[in-house]
Amino acid sequence: MKILHRTEIEKILSSLDPIPKIEEGFVQYSKGLATVPPVGELLMEKGEVHIKYGCIRADEYYVVKVASGFYQNDALGLPSSNGLMLLFSQQTGQLACALLDEGFLTDIRTAIAGAIAAKHLAPANITAIGIVGTGIQARLQALYLKKVTTCRQLIVWGRSAEKTGDYQQDMQREGFEVSIADSIDELAQSANFIVTTTPSTTPLINVSQVRQGTHITAVGSDTPEKQELASDILARANLVVADSISQCQQRGEIYQALKAGSIQGEKVVELGNVIAAGQGRADEQQITIADLTGVAVQDIKIAEAVYLASEKK
Amino acid sequence: MKILHRTEIEKILSSLDPIPKIEEGFVQYSKGLATVPPVGELLMEKGEVHIKYGCIRADEYYVVKVASGFYQNDALGLPSSNGLMLLFSQQTGQLACALLDEGFLTDIRTAIAGAIAAKHLAPANITAIGIVGTGIQARLQALYLKKVTTCRQLIVWGRSAEKTGDYQQDMQREGFEVSIADSIDELAQSANFIVTTTPSTTPLINVSQVRQGTHITAVGSDTPEKQELASDILARANLVVADSISQCQQRGEIYQALKAGSIQGEKVVELGNVIAAGQGRADEQQITIADLTGVAVQDIKIAEAVYLASEKK
Repeated sequence: MKILHRTEIEKILSSLDPIPKIEEGFVQYSKGLATVPPVGELLMEKGEVHIKYGCIRADEYYVVKVASGFYQNDALGLPSSNGLMLLFSQQTGQLACALLDEGFLTDIRTAIAGAIAAKHLAPANITAIGIVGTGIQARLQALYLKKVTTCRQLIVWGRSAEKTGDYQQDMQREGFEVSIADSIDELAQSANFIVTTTPSTTPLINVSQVRQGTHITAVGSDTPEKQELASDILARANLVVADSISQCQQRGEIYQALKAGSIQGEKVVELGNVIAAGQGRADEQQITIADLTGVAVQDIKIAEAVYLASEKK
Repeated sequence: MKILHRTEIEKILSSLDPIPKIEEGFVQYSKGLATVPPVGELLMEKGEVHIKYGCIRADEYYVVKVASGFYQNDALGLPSSNGLMLLFSQQTGQLACALLDEGFLTDIRTAIAGAIAAKHLAPANITAIGIVGTGIQARLQALYLKKVTTCRQLIVWGRSAEKTGDYQQDMQREGFEVSIADSIDELAQSANFIVTTTPSTTPLINVSQVRQGTHITAVGSDTPEKQELASDILARANLVVADSISQCQQRGEIYQALKAGSIQGEKVVELGNVIAAGQGRADEQQITIADLTGVAVQDIKIAEAVYLASEKK
């Protein structure tokens, strides 16, 4: 049994491109080739834990991931995210590898799902990338978009002027030309590719702000309570894509829009099917939405990729 | 973060008595002081995985356990059970300890639950301990009963003559006087304390075989399919005890008896309440049943006990 610590995992990942693997995972998931039970959840006074687990039946391993958020950790000088991934043999049940990534791989595979959504749904000509939020996903989504888009114009909106300023500096260092939006309105006027990355529980973007030809990837909302997009945006969209239809019926933007009666279930298509059919955005006028709540196949594929790369060294 | 391997865990456990801790865990569970979400389950071609997790809110740690059974491992010379327990801080979410016990602690805490059931439900004078089955639990249940009973007469029934013979030899070495029953009938005639430990999916004991004053602990059935006791035994019993009422409504002997309409839900009492009230067996004529399906509080308490003992060394 191998143990990989965060620093080793970061090093391995720097010379690895898991995008095709995770794309393959989404396709296998949508084709029914994966077993992904409902997400386990443990709510405690100071934090919440999610357990995602499952297997792609043709693969060698099954994966169990424990991911937690303890939001008072900031005051203790500790990261709020934590967790690990465990890779077990599907043949014998033996533990092959414990990836003590402290939540790092979850952040990465979430950003990769954003890049995959962009590959299939982004307008051909991105005028600017609009980022709502200034946290880890606000950074990683932009960094992974570099792998699939040529646009280096970035416009950011955040609640805290200080954090938004930090974000601007950091992302300029990463090769983006970064402007700060005073409002969501301003952001939506210049960006036709928007990523929302906040834990908001009230919509941040209204339907009137969304221009024709815009794509929005919503990654912030992963619970029944959180919501970043007004539900009528999903009603107006030409294409609404879920990473997992069954999960998005219970949490995230699609759940909110279904609950509000703004859309019907039939409107939602699954990312793996979009990838498999090559049928993403049809033209430059469409409004497209990708709602990403995080699926265990992403964890399976990234954990496998890191472990197998570590074995080859 | 500490990693404990199986050999270290076995050594620590040899000088530890977790029975009072696990008893306390059952009481806290029944008092509603624990959070124990439904068991996660992943079924694969060659094996099955159960994820048990939760926390006792006053405790320092939350626990996630992954336990698997891969029943073709025998042919590969590997144990069928596998797994590990993870201890995380309830304050910060940080991983405190990974107990790579390979399923060992699950076996032990299951045997301890049997000893706890015996403490509260066994007849005062056990004529003989009847063990149905010859596997790991058949051994461990008897070994842990030594800690709470004085009876050293043991009668065993198993399907395989060879394995039953091995069992006899092994348990004689452990200080028991062991006879082999040719039938369940014979076993139930001489033993007034019976433990069933098989993965049977059809009842092994009929109501006509159970004498007044008998206690039966059923540990084999932990899924909706498995059943070791005919449901009318539970109907005839004076006291039917579940380790977890909510779990036993979905799996095990009580589930079967409820489904068959043999008993009503009100008949079932929870082990933690029996312990707290000190109201187990009322007299020597009662028939009592304990249905043990395995609750995460057992895992929490044994993992905590082993980890804390390892820190004291």
